[in-house]
Amino acid sequence: MEDITDSIIFSRGNKFPESYRKNFIGQVWINILVEQNNEWNCTIGNVTFEPGCRNNWHKHPGGQILLVTGGKGWFQEWGKEERVILPGDVVKIPANKKHWHGAARDSWLVHLYITTNSNRGSTEWMEQVLDEYYNKLK
Amino acid sequence: MEDITDSIIFSRGNKFPESYRKNFIGQVWINILVEQNNEWNCTIGNVTFEPGCRNNWHKHPGGQILLVTGGKGWFQEWGKEERVILPGDVVKIPANKKHWHGAARDSWLVHLYITTNSNRGSTEWMEQVLDEYYNKLK
Repeated sequence: MEDITDSIIFSRGNKFPESYRKNFIGQVWINILVEQNNEWNCTIGNVTFEPGCRNNWHKHPGGQILLVTGGKGWFQEWGKEERVILPGDVVKIPANKKHWHGAARDSWLVHLYITTNSNRGSTEWMEQVLDEYYNKLK
Repeated sequence: MEDITDSIIFSRGNKFPESYRKNFIGQVWINILVEQNNEWNCTIGNVTFEPGCRNNWHKHPGGQILLVTGGKGWFQEWGKEERVILPGDVVKIPANKKHWHGAARDSWLVHLYITTNSNRGSTEWMEQVLDEYYNKLK
């Protein structure tokens, strides 16, 4: 398995804080590039998921864009088919659309996030993507 | 000189349309990843400047973030020192701050842009960064 964390442009950053880890299954790192602010009305960061790691279902009140920069992963919007995401892919998530994303079982995933209209409030976290579901993805 | 356009994550895209080229000295390519929209209130794209290419002084009514992904370039805000920008750098440009950016004389530059609060209106273009200024940068 390639160690993709050696080949990224924006550094891997730190493991997520303890309070946030409950929203993920597996290990995840974050490098916050643009903090919450009033000037740009968005937050930006780089997220690295270890193989098998994914976040819980969640919603953003102002939407989010993902720019995939490394590895291989999954994205799914509630009620739609899951899809593979690869470097160069752009994922456009409208406001309040329930979704999850994460690494493939056999690959790291690195993506930038742009959480848009961030002044509308913070992410709403929901149920986990359980092993019995995730392990069947292919 | 390395051909950086071979090593980028988001494809180089197309040469800027004729109507837009007057805002640049030199050749520039754009790959628009997120078009103007009402959902995310930002536009996102990948821009590639050939060596020596730079844009004119300009302002964004809603600000802009640059994420540098390849090569080497310059950024300058009006009234401040110019600075070198390199892969991994994040440039935060507040609304209505006059600035320019572009490649170094001896390198390509590739950056993502996130034009924030894009619903506030379009870029205001101003004077060129002339050779007699640009060629003295070091």
